[in-house]
Amino acid sequence: MREKNFLKTPPMGWNSYDYYDTAVTEADVKANADYMAANLKEYGWEYIVVDIEWYSVNAGTRRKEYQYIPFEMVEIDKYSRLQPCIDRFPSAKGGAGFKPLADYVHKKGLKFGIHIMRGIPRIAAHMHMEIKGTDVRANEIADPSSICFWNPDMYGVRPGKEASQLYYDSLFELYAQWGVDFVKCDDICRMDMPSAEEEIRMLSKAIEKCGRPIVLSLSPGPAKLDKAWIYEKYSNMWRITDDFWDDWKLLVNMFDRCEQWQDHVKEGSYPDCDMIPVGKIGKGFGDERDTRFTRDEQITMMSLWSIFRSPMMLGCELTKLDGDTVSLITNKDVLSLLKLKSRAQMIEKSREHAVWMNSDAQNLYIALFNISDEEKEISCGIPYEGCAKGTELWSHRDISVENDIICAVIPAHGAQIFRIEKNV
Amino acid sequence: MREKNFLKTPPMGWNSYDYYDTAVTEADVKANADYMAANLKEYGWEYIVVDIEWYSVNAGTRRKEYQYIPFEMVEIDKYSRLQPCIDRFPSAKGGAGFKPLADYVHKKGLKFGIHIMRGIPRIAAHMHMEIKGTDVRANEIADPSSICFWNPDMYGVRPGKEASQLYYDSLFELYAQWGVDFVKCDDICRMDMPSAEEEIRMLSKAIEKCGRPIVLSLSPGPAKLDKAWIYEKYSNMWRITDDFWDDWKLLVNMFDRCEQWQDHVKEGSYPDCDMIPVGKIGKGFGDERDTRFTRDEQITMMSLWSIFRSPMMLGCELTKLDGDTVSLITNKDVLSLLKLKSRAQMIEKSREHAVWMNSDAQNLYIALFNISDEEKEISCGIPYEGCAKGTELWSHRDISVENDIICAVIPAHGAQIFRIEKNV
Amino acid sequence: MREKNFLKTPPMGWNSYDYYDTAVTEADVKANADYMAANLKEYGWEYIVVDIEWYSVNAGTRRKEYQYIPFEMVEIDKYSRLQPCIDRFPSAKGGAGFKPLADYVHKKGLKFGIHIMRGIPRIAAHMHMEIKGTDVRANEIADPSSICFWNPDMYGVRPGKEASQLYYDSLFELYAQWGVDFVKCDDICRMDMPSAEEEIRMLSKAIEKCGRPIVLSLSPGPAKLDKAWIYEKYSNMWRITDDFWDDWKLLVNMFDRCEQWQDHVKEGSYPDCDMIPVGKIGKGFGDERDTRFTRDEQITMMSLWSIFRSPMMLGCELTKLDGDTVSLITNKDVLSLLKLKSRAQMIEKSREHAVWMNSDAQNLYIALFNISDEEKEISCGIPYEGCAKGTELWSHRDISVENDIICAVIPAHGAQIFRIEKNV
Amino acid sequence: MREKNFLKTPPMGWNSYDYYDTAVTEADVKANADYMAANLKEYGWEYIVVDIEWYSVNAGTRRKEYQYIPFEMVEIDKYSRLQPCIDRFPSAKGGAGFKPLADYVHKKGLKFGIHIMRGIPRIAAHMHMEIKGTDVRANEIADPSSICFWNPDMYGVRPGKEASQLYYDSLFELYAQWGVDFVKCDDICRMDMPSAEEEIRMLSKAIEKCGRPIVLSLSPGPAKLDKAWIYEKYSNMWRITDDFWDDWKLLVNMFDRCEQWQDHVKEGSYPDCDMIPVGKIGKGFGDERDTRFTRDEQITMMSLWSIFRSPMMLGCELTKLDGDTVSLITNKDVLSLLKLKSRAQMIEKSREHAVWMNSDAQNLYIALFNISDEEKEISCGIPYEGCAKGTELWSHRDISVENDIICAVIPAHGAQIFRIEKNV
Repeated sequence: MREKNFLKTPPMGWNSYDYYDTAVTEADVKANADYMAANLKEYGWEYIVVDIEWYSVNAGTRRKEYQYIPFEMVEIDKYSRLQPCIDRFPSAKGGAGFKPLADYVHKKGLKFGIHIMRGIPRIAAHMHMEIKGTDVRANEIADPSSICFWNPDMYGVRPGKEASQLYYDSLFELYAQWGVDFVKCDDICRMDMPSAEEEIRMLSKAIEKCGRPIVLSLSPGPAKLDKAWIYEKYSNMWRITDDFWDDWKLLVNMFDRCEQWQDHVKEGSYPDCDMIPVGKIGKGFGDERDTRFTRDEQITMMSLWSIFRSPMMLGCELTKLDGDTVSLITNKDVLSLLKLKSRAQMIEKSREHAVWMNSDAQNLYIALFNISDEEKEISCGIPYEGCAKGTELWSHRDISVENDIICAVIPAHGAQIFRIEKNV
Repeated sequence: MREKNFLKTPPMGWNSYDYYDTAVTEADVKANADYMAANLKEYGWEYIVVDIEWYSVNAGTRRKEYQYIPFEMVEIDKYSRLQPCIDRFPSAKGGAGFKPLADYVHKKGLKFGIHIMRGIPRIAAHMHMEIKGTDVRANEIADPSSICFWNPDMYGVRPGKEASQLYYDSLFELYAQWGVDFVKCDDICRMDMPSAEEEIRMLSKAIEKCGRPIVLSLSPGPAKLDKAWIYEKYSNMWRITDDFWDDWKLLVNMFDRCEQWQDHVKEGSYPDCDMIPVGKIGKGFGDERDTRFTRDEQITMMSLWSIFRSPMMLGCELTKLDGDTVSLITNKDVLSLLKLKSRAQMIEKSREHAVWMNSDAQNLYIALFNISDEEKEISCGIPYEGCAKGTELWSHRDISVENDIICAVIPAHGAQIFRIEKNV
Repeated sequence: MREKNFLKTPPMGWNSYDYYDTAVTEADVKANADYMAANLKEYGWEYIVVDIEWYSVNAGTRRKEYQYIPFEMVEIDKYSRLQPCIDRFPSAKGGAGFKPLADYVHKKGLKFGIHIMRGIPRIAAHMHMEIKGTDVRANEIADPSSICFWNPDMYGVRPGKEASQLYYDSLFELYAQWGVDFVKCDDICRMDMPSAEEEIRMLSKAIEKCGRPIVLSLSPGPAKLDKAWIYEKYSNMWRITDDFWDDWKLLVNMFDRCEQWQDHVKEGSYPDCDMIPVGKIGKGFGDERDTRFTRDEQITMMSLWSIFRSPMMLGCELTKLDGDTVSLITNKDVLSLLKLKSRAQMIEKSREHAVWMNSDAQNLYIALFNISDEEKEISCGIPYEGCAKGTELWSHRDISVENDIICAVIPAHGAQIFRIEKNV
Repeated sequence: MREKNFLKTPPMGWNSYDYYDTAVTEADVKANADYMAANLKEYGWEYIVVDIEWYSVNAGTRRKEYQYIPFEMVEIDKYSRLQPCIDRFPSAKGGAGFKPLADYVHKKGLKFGIHIMRGIPRIAAHMHMEIKGTDVRANEIADPSSICFWNPDMYGVRPGKEASQLYYDSLFELYAQWGVDFVKCDDICRMDMPSAEEEIRMLSKAIEKCGRPIVLSLSPGPAKLDKAWIYEKYSNMWRITDDFWDDWKLLVNMFDRCEQWQDHVKEGSYPDCDMIPVGKIGKGFGDERDTRFTRDEQITMMSLWSIFRSPMMLGCELTKLDGDTVSLITNKDVLSLLKLKSRAQMIEKSREHAVWMNSDAQNLYIALFNISDEEKEISCGIPYEGCAKGTELWSHRDISVENDIICAVIPAHGAQIFRIEKNV
C-alpha cells in the first residue's frame, strides 16, 4: 500500500494553466519559480506545476479554432512516452526531459510538478509503438473507445493487462528520474470512462514502485462522492469541481461542494477546490485580464479554501502580482488553518450565508460567509462556554465574545474568520 | 430535396452479418446471390448486402479477443476512402472496388448493397490524408471526440465544414461508380454523438448529388422517436431496435417498438425491425447454429414484420436453407402485406396479446398475436359490418366470420393473420 | 370500440381558464356564449368550456396563497360526484347540475363542455361515500398515493376494480344527462401517475357506454410520444405542451413539439397545442392584461395551430375582443387549413426558420415561419412543377411563383401562409 | 444547537417490525422487553421500539389487500396527534398514551422507542382539526401534495409556517411526557418530498425544545450521500439502505453502502444499516419463518454492522430465539467494536472480497469478508510492523502473524474478524 503520510498538509503552489493555457515555456516557469522562491516560499508556497500539453508541438498556435489541436505532432520517445517539446522547453533537448528544469526548481528550494493525461498517446496506438519492459505494443493496451471528450491526445489503457501497468510504471520511472514531485493526472477524476477507476489504481501502484514520494492529483471534477474511498486510498488530492474560474456563481457553488466533501479531508488526502484565479490570468486564452473577483469575493475564496483545507494552487502570473493580491495570499494567520489536524465542519448554511468551524487545542476558528448580494449581520453560537476574546484574521482586529455568540456585519459576497481563544 | 419515391415498398433482401459477422468473402456473397436469384427473387427478395468491415485486413481473425481488431490495417485509397480487402474480395484488385461484384449481382437481376460506418477512417486523420476535391486534409474534418463506442475504425466528421460534405460526396460518387444500390450506414441512427443528425443530412445530400437512387438505411437502433422527422425526410429506413437476434424477449419487445413507430410508416420511409435470424446463423461469431426461435415464434416474427411493413433482410446463410424456413419466407399472401398502401395499426395490446390491422379496398387484414406462454383464444371486433368470410394466411384455411368478431385459438408465442373480404 | 369519427375536424371554441382561472360564473359563461353565437359561430367556433373547480366553494378567494385552496368544501352528490357550486352557477340549484347552462348554450347553436380532474374526490374517500350502482364505497377504489401534484381535490382510482369503472360510468351518465358535449380531463395526459393510462381507457369506455358523442380532451402535457397509440385510440385530443401562455419562448418551443407529433394528426384524434392566449387574459390570476404576444407572434401562433391542425380554444374574454384580435381569429382562409384531410409536414427547420406544408387536390399550402429575432428572407422549393400563382392568406396578396421556389421577406417572429394553385 | 453527545455509541435494541409488521400489541412488546432485560441487556441491548401504525384501528386485518389500510380510522387526540390504539395497547386508555408501557420498559432498565410517520394525519387536515398552541388549523399546515407513496396516513407539513413547528413541538412535548427515548421517523430519510429536509430540522428543534434526550432515527433509505451534513447535524442515525431483509443480494449490496458512508460515522451520528433479520421473523407479513440467511451470512452481517459501527436493531421475536442466534448476538468481543472511538475504513474491495479495518491504542481489528460463492483464501497486509499475535473473534482462536500479513481461508459468504495486538 502506497504511503501517503509524506504529505502532512494540503499542497500549496503555482500552476501554469490559468495564465498560460497550453503555451507555457521554460522561461515562464523559471520566472515564476524565481518569484515564488524569493517572495512566497516563506508562507508555505512551494510547488511549481507545468500544466497541459507541454509535449505538443504547436500547442496554442491555433487558439481560435482549437484549444488542443487534433492530430498534431507530439514529442514522444520510442517507448510511447511523451517528452517536453524542445521549442518551448529547450533544456529538454538530447532526451533530458524535464530533469534540467526540475533541477532548477529544486535548487530554489521548491518542488516540481507536471500535468499528464490519462492513457497512452493515440499516435502510439495507431503506429504500434513499443512499451518499455514488454514485447506488447501500444495498440494492444490502448482502448479505442476510451477517449477524453475535450482533449484528443490519448486513449485510455485496458485494465487487467500486465502491459498496461508496465506502461504506467515506465512513465513514473521516467518522472522519478526527472525529479518530479507532483503529477496532476487529467481526464480521470470524474470517471467519464469506466476504466478510470482502474487507471487510478495503476497510477498509484506505479508511484509506489518508482520509489519517489510523488503527489498524485486527480482532475477534472466533479469527483463522484460515492467513490470517495477510491480517491482517498489511491490519490492525494482530487478535484471536487469542474474547472473553477473567477465567476461568483462558481464560488457560491463551492459551498455545496465543500459541504458534501467535508468528511473526506484527512492527512495525505485532500478534496481539491481547484486553482485560485486571482491577479493576472487568461493570457493563453487570448484574454489577459485581472481577476473578475472583487476583493470581498477573493477573501471569501481564500477563507473557504483555507478553513476547508483544500490544496492551494495559484493560477496567476506571479511576476505580475500586485500588492493587494500579495497580501491576500500571504496572510499567515489565514494560511495556518491549512495546518490544523482536524477537519472543519460547515455548521450552518442557507441561501444567504454559511458558517464553518474548526479548532485546535487552544483556539476555535469560525468563518462567517455572506453569500447574499447585500451586507448582512451574521451570527453563530459558540459551542464552548466562556470564550471571551479573539481576533478576526483578515483585519487582525481584536474582538470580544458575549453570551457565547459571535456576530459580525459582513459585506455582500464577503467573509470574516475569527480565531477565538478557548477558555481552558 | 432527395426523391425517395423510387422505393415503393419496404426493401427485401439478404445481409451477410448474422451468419458471417465481419468475415464474409466474395465467394460467399456470390453463392447467396445465386441462391436468391434462383429461388427467392420471384417472391420479392432482391437486395444482397455486404455488412461490416469489408475493408479491414484480418477482420475476424482474432474473434475471441475482438469483434473489431483495433488499430488494424485497412484498405484505403489516397482520398481517405475505404476499399474492399483484396484477400477476401479478389475482384476488387487494381482499384476496381466493389464494381465487379456489383456487376455480378446485377446480372442475376438483383441489387447490391454495402455497409459503411459513419465518418472518416481514424488512420486518415492521424496520417493527414487527402480528401477528394479540396486541399483540406482528413485531420481538419475528423472530430477526435466523435467516435463509435463499439467499433474503432472511424472518427465522425465535423458538421459545418465544406470539406466534410465533399468527403461524403466523394464516397457516394465512388459507390455510384461501383453500382451500389443500398447503403447501410452504421453508428448513426440512435445518434450517440451530437453530429449524427448533421451527418445524416450530409449523407442524403451526397446521395442526391451522386445521381443514383441509392437506398439509405440507418443503424443501429433504437432510433429516437422525437427525431422521426429527420429519419423520414433524409433516409429510407431506420432501425427501431438495437441488434435483433433469435431471443423471444427481444421479439416480445418489438411489439412495443412497432406500437411506437406505427404512425411513421410511409412510402419510401420505413421504420426497420432489423434482420431476420431464421435458418442457419452465427458462424462468424464462432457459434454456427439453427435459429433459437421456435416455428411459432418465427411465424410471429414474419407476421409482425409483414403487417407493420418493416424492411425484410434475411440474416441466414441462404445456401443452407431448410424447407420449413423456405416456406416461411416464401408465403406470398403474407408478404403481400408489405405492398399495402396504408399503414397498419395496433388496435389492442396487453401483456398477453396484440392485434394489428390493415386494409385495402377489398380486404381487411387482422393479425392476432399470442405473446403469452400458454395457448390462448384471442378475439377481436371487426370494424366493418357484415363481413362473412376470409382466409388465414399461414394455413390457407378458410374461415367464416360471425357477429363481426374474429376469434382464434393461438399457440403460445404464435400468430395468425386473417384476410377478410369486405362486404362491399 | 368507441366511435370517434363524429369529430371530423379539430374542435374550435372558448375556454374559461386563461381569463377567469378558477373563478368563472354562470353569467360569464353566458356572456361569452352570447358573443360567440353572434360573432364567431359562422367561422367555426362552437365549443363553450367551463374550466377547473366549478365545484369548489370559495374557489379563487385566496388567490395570493393558493390557486386551489386545499381541503376546501366542495359541492358533491351522494354518489361522490362533484356538482356545480350554486353560488357561482345558480341555475344548478335543486340538483339540476349543468343541465340548464348546457341548454342555454345549445339554444345558441353551440356546444357545451366542462373540465374534470382525473379520479374521485379525496373527501369522498375519507368519508367512505357511496358509488352509484355498487355497494363498494369510495375508500375502496381511491388510491391514496395517486394524487395530482398541483391540485388537491382528487385521488386517482384503482385500475382493475369493477367499481372504478362504475364510478366513471356514473360520471358520464350524469354528464350525458346534463347535455355535455366536451370533457377536458386533467392530470392525466402526461401520465404522472402509473394508473393514468388505465384511467384513460376507463374514461373512453364510460363515454362509449353513456351513448352521447362527447369529445374527450386530455390535459396537461407534454403528452408522452411513446404513448401516442393510447391517446389516438381512446381520446380525441391530447395536450402536447405544458400550459401554453403568451411567452415567445413557449411559442418557439411549439415548433419542436409539432415536429414530433406531426405524424399523429388524424380524423377524430388531434395533438393539442393548448389554448390561444390572445386578447384580454389573466383576470382571475390577478393580472388582467392584453396578450404579451406581438401581432407578428399572434400570426405565427395562428398559422402554426392552423396548418398543424391543432384544436383551437380561445383563452380570452370574448366580450372584450378588439378588432385586431377579431380579424386574427376570423380569417376564413387560414382557418380552412383545419379542414384539410391530409396531415401537414414540417419540411424544413433550423434555429431561425421553419417551413410547413400541406395540400389538397387543388392547392398546396406552405407556411413560412421566421423564428429568429431579425427580419429574414425565407425561401422553399415547391415539390410540384409548374406552379405559377397563389395567395398569401394573411394579407390576401396575390403572388406569382418562379422556378418552383416560393420566397418571402418575413418579419422577426412572423409568418406567412401561401396557398398555391397546383398546375393540374 | 441540539446536543447529541448523549449517544456515545450506536444504539442497540429490538424493533417490532420484522416480526409483527403493523400488528404488534402491548403484550408482545412487554414479552420482548422481559426477554431482553433478562438475557440481552448485559450485552448492551437496551432499546425496545414499537414500529409502524400503533395508532391505526384494524391495522393488519386486511393484510392480503393492504399493508396499510387506506382511509381507515385512527386514534387521534383533539390536537391532531395520533394515539395508541386501545385495542392493541390497552394501557393507553383514558388518554394515557404510551406512558404506562414506557414506564414498564424503563422499570426493566431498558429504553422505549416509537415509530412515527413524517407529517400530520390526513384526516386532521380534511377535518380542519386543531393544533396545540395556535389558532391555525391542520388544513393550513398540511401540504396536500406532500404524501408518502407507500403509506396513506399523513400529509407532510409546510415548511416556513410557525404552526408547522408548533405541531412538531406538540408531538415531542407529548412523547417526552410519555417517556419516549427513541423516535424513528419514517418517510423522511431519502427525501422523496422536497419538504423533508426542512421537516428534519423541525424534528430536531422540537426535540431540543422538549428537553428530553431522544434519539432521532430517520427512515427509510437510501439516504442521500450529498445530504450527509443534514443527517449528521440534525439526527442520530439515518438509514443508508431501503428495507433490509434476509436476502444475500441485499447483504452484498451493503458493502457498497458502507463503503460510501464510512467517513460519516461519528459520536452521536451513525449511518444505519437497518434491522437485523435473524431468528424468527415475518409473522405479521403472513410468512413466519426462520431467517433465510445461512450461519455464515449471519456472521458476515454481524461482522459488517459491528466494524462499521452501525446501530443494531434486532428484527426477530426475542422470545423465540434459538441458541445459535443468541450466540450470534451476544459475542462481546464482536460487539465491542461498536464502542471504538475511531471510524473503520474499508481498505480493500473486489467483487469477491472486502477488508475492513479499525483500531484502538492496543489493538488492530481486521475483518475479512468473502462475498464470493466459493471458499477463498483472503489475505491483507497489516500497516503496523512487528505484530505477532491475535485472536479471531468468532472462533476465539489464537493466531500468529507472519511478515505483516494476515491470511485466512473464509467460507463462501462468510467472514472472520481478527483482533491483533499492536507491537507497542
